[in-house]
Parts: sequence; C-alpha cells; structure tokens
Amino acid sequence: MSTTTTATAATGATTGGGPSYPPTDRTVPTRSRQRASYDKDVVHAILDEGYVCHLGFIRDGAPVVLPTLYGRIGERLYVHGSTGSRPLRMAGSKEPAEAPGLPVCLTVTHVDGLVLARSAFHHSLNYRSVVVHGTAHQVTDPDELRSALDALVDQVVPGRAADSRPANAKELAATAVIRLDLEEVSAKVRTGGPNDDAEDLPLPHWAGVVPVAPRTGTPVASADLDPAIALPSYLTAR
Amino acid sequence: MSTTTTATAATGATTGGGPSYPPTDRTVPTRSRQRASYDKDVVHAILDEGYVCHLGFIRDGAPVVLPTLYGRIGERLYVHGSTGSRPLRMAGSKEPAEAPGLPVCLTVTHVDGLVLARSAFHHSLNYRSVVVHGTAHQVTDPDELRSALDALVDQVVPGRAADSRPANAKELAATAVIRLDLEEVSAKVRTGGPNDDAEDLPLPHWAGVVPVAPRTGTPVASADLDPAIALPSYLTAR
Repeated sequence: MSTTTTATAATGATTGGGPSYPPTDRTVPTRSRQRASYDKDVVHAILDEGYVCHLGFIRDGAPVVLPTLYGRIGERLYVHGSTGSRPLRMAGSKEPAEAPGLPVCLTVTHVDGLVLARSAFHHSLNYRSVVVHGTAHQVTDPDELRSALDALVDQVVPGRAADSRPANAKELAATAVIRLDLEEVSAKVRTGGPNDDAEDLPLPHWAGVVPVAPRTGTPVASADLDPAIALPSYLTAR
Repeated sequence: MSTTTTATAATGATTGGGPSYPPTDRTVPTRSRQRASYDKDVVHAILDEGYVCHLGFIRDGAPVVLPTLYGRIGERLYVHGSTGSRPLRMAGSKEPAEAPGLPVCLTVTHVDGLVLARSAFHHSLNYRSVVVHGTAHQVTDPDELRSALDALVDQVVPGRAADSRPANAKELAATAVIRLDLEEVSAKVRTGGPNDDAEDLPLPHWAGVVPVAPRTGTPVASADLDPAIALPSYLTAR
C-alpha cells in the first residue's frame, strides 16, 4: 500500500527481456508501478495457474463483475457461458465483421500471502494478478468452439477433456463461448515481507508473512459411480 | 452449467426466512436462478470468509476490474486504496451531497470444489459468490475512516487491528477508503455432485467432486523481528 514508486522501477523490476505486451494508458498502474509486468511468460504463468476469472462488462450503463471459468489457447482466452447468459448475448452471435462485440475487463488473481506489518498502514497482500482489457466476441466457428471447450475443461483439470464425453450437437447449440485476445494485458505481482518504516521496527508487534495457497482435497466419487472406475492419474497426481 | 430452472426454485432453495435484500432486475440471474439467495445471513457469511474482492467500475467508457481488499461493518463494505488510485479519485473527495460517487460492482467469490461430470458439458464448480451493485462514496468522517481501516485489517486477520500501530495523521491523509452500502445484493451458491444426464451414467469416466479450499501455511517472521516477540494467538489459532 506504499505509493512511492519511480518510472524506472515501473518496467525494470519484472520484465524478463522476452516477448511482452505493449503498455497502454490503461495497463500502466497509477501506483505501485514497480509491481507491474508486461512479460508474456509472466502473464501466461499466472493465467495457467487459475481457472476462475472475474469478468467485468457494462450493462445498462453500470459495471457488472461476474466470476466465471476461462481457458487459454496461446494468445486467446475463452470464457464459457450459456447462450442465455447476459454477457454472452451482448457479445453477439456473429463474427466481428458483423457484431461490435462486448468491451470487457477480465481479471485473474492469486493470493500468496498475508503481509503483517507493525503499522496498520503497511499491511498488504502478496499476490499475482493479470488484467486483460479488450473486446470479446462470440465464437462461432465449430472447430474453434470445440477447441475452446476442451481448453475450458483442461484449464480446471489438465487431461480431463480427453476423459469425458465431448459436447453433442444439442449441447453445442446451448453453449456460448466468447473469445478475448491477449493484446492489452498487464500482470501485477507483490512478493516479500512487510515494508515497515524504520521508526516502527522497535514496536512490540509480530511482523511477517502468513502464506496462503489453494489446497486440493481428496476427490469424492459420485454415489452412482461404478466402483470399478478408478481415480484417474490426472487426479491422483494433484 | 445446466440452465434448466424454474421461477419457483429461484427463491425457494436458499432463502432462510430471515432478513433479506429485495431482489432487483440486476440481482436476479438470467440462469441458474435456484442458486441465487438474497438472505442477509448467507451474504454476510460469504463476505466474512473473504478479504479480497474484485471491484468493477467504468473508466473512459470501458469496464475495469481490479482485485482489492475489503472490510465489512454491518451493512456497509469498505474498500481500501491510496488517494492516488483511480477508482478512489473517481469516487470523489466529498460526501454524497456534493459528489456523485462512483457506480461499482463488487464481487467476492470462494471456490469450494471442482465438479467432474461424465460429459464435458456438465462440468462445473462448487462455489459461493456475492455480487453487490451500488454507488461508492469516499469516507471523509475521521471516526468512520478509522473504524473502516480497522475493519479492513481485521477482515484479513481477525484481531490484528488491535495489535498494530494505528495510522497516524500523515498516513490517514494518504489513505482513501470508499464505502458501499449493502442494498442491491445477491449471493449465488452451487453445492453437490455432477448433474450428469441419465444416459451418460454408464460411461467409463470418473465422476465426482475435487474439494478446494484456501490453505494457510506456517507464518514466516520478518528477518528483522525481535525473537522475543512470539507468534500472536490470532495466528496460532488459524
């Protein structure tokens, strides 16, 4: 929550020298610029570790933020919904040439730690987030739609798409997927311990970091599952 | 991802009969209505289990979604930022009578499980989410600001606000907090196993739920922490 940054730190800290997304007015943060990164490897790694995003769009002039599943194929993200869902309808049923698409902001966040400083002011979180700005379009090409649905399933459990019944024609007709290209993208990462002011170091308050991470528990089989079907390797390896 | 619901199910499934938020056009979902709840106890419980929200607002006509900390006091949420941050500046520095405030959508999501069905189509997540629509205003009353800052710290680690140095005048001046009243609010909850179609039950794919929950690790003290300062009870009890 410290706001003291420099322009030099903005690009120097986390850009690895590989391919990166060009910064724009809306992907350069107004504060904590040293935590921003446009490195494609950094962005991809954060995206690939998650499967739930928060999708923001405008409805009747007001912002809406909904949690939803996403999948990544290269430089494209796919977001899943039913054809009856509001954002999907707004993204249009035609390809870009005929539909204007839906302006969105898609954000993925991982919390890595609670940062406890001696001062209330310097309390913070360790986290990694990616924010994508762009215009989403509904996927209409049948091959792309099938690839996107596989990517959405494999994003949650890698290897699962090949071990489930693919969508049939009726299900495909009831499913809408929107595509968002990774063009205007930034990551933001905070790591390390608390940044207490020097005069606060003698204070009698514990200071440090409490690590946080998602825990995957033991899979629970459906009551109606054939007992002969063993837990698949893509689940035992988690 | 099943879309078959009925109007009856929309309010019957999860409303406990206690105080509730009045449903509005934008808090009644277009699908999976049986998962929606307006029960205040349900909403408060979901909010109190988290500390990171995704805040959506409109900037230059486009949606923006940023992860940020929040705290709850009764029917008010507080969101923290620096006075230099974009949403805070947009929320204005005056009370509602003089500033229009910032239209926002604040969403909190907990993932509880990965739902693996025999069909790709019926894959889903178990989750609990709260979506709050409203207009945020900057907190200017000094007493409310101090209470909000305590709530923000205690939301992350209950009991911590009393065991840290409170913000001083300089820090208070550099801190902006916006307030969002809980008025137009809904929760959405999915629980249980996969909803496979009957004809898919004989398929040879494993089906069930993989539980997911955040794990809190062993606290790591700052390198410069006085070794005489023991881990506080509000951390050992986690």
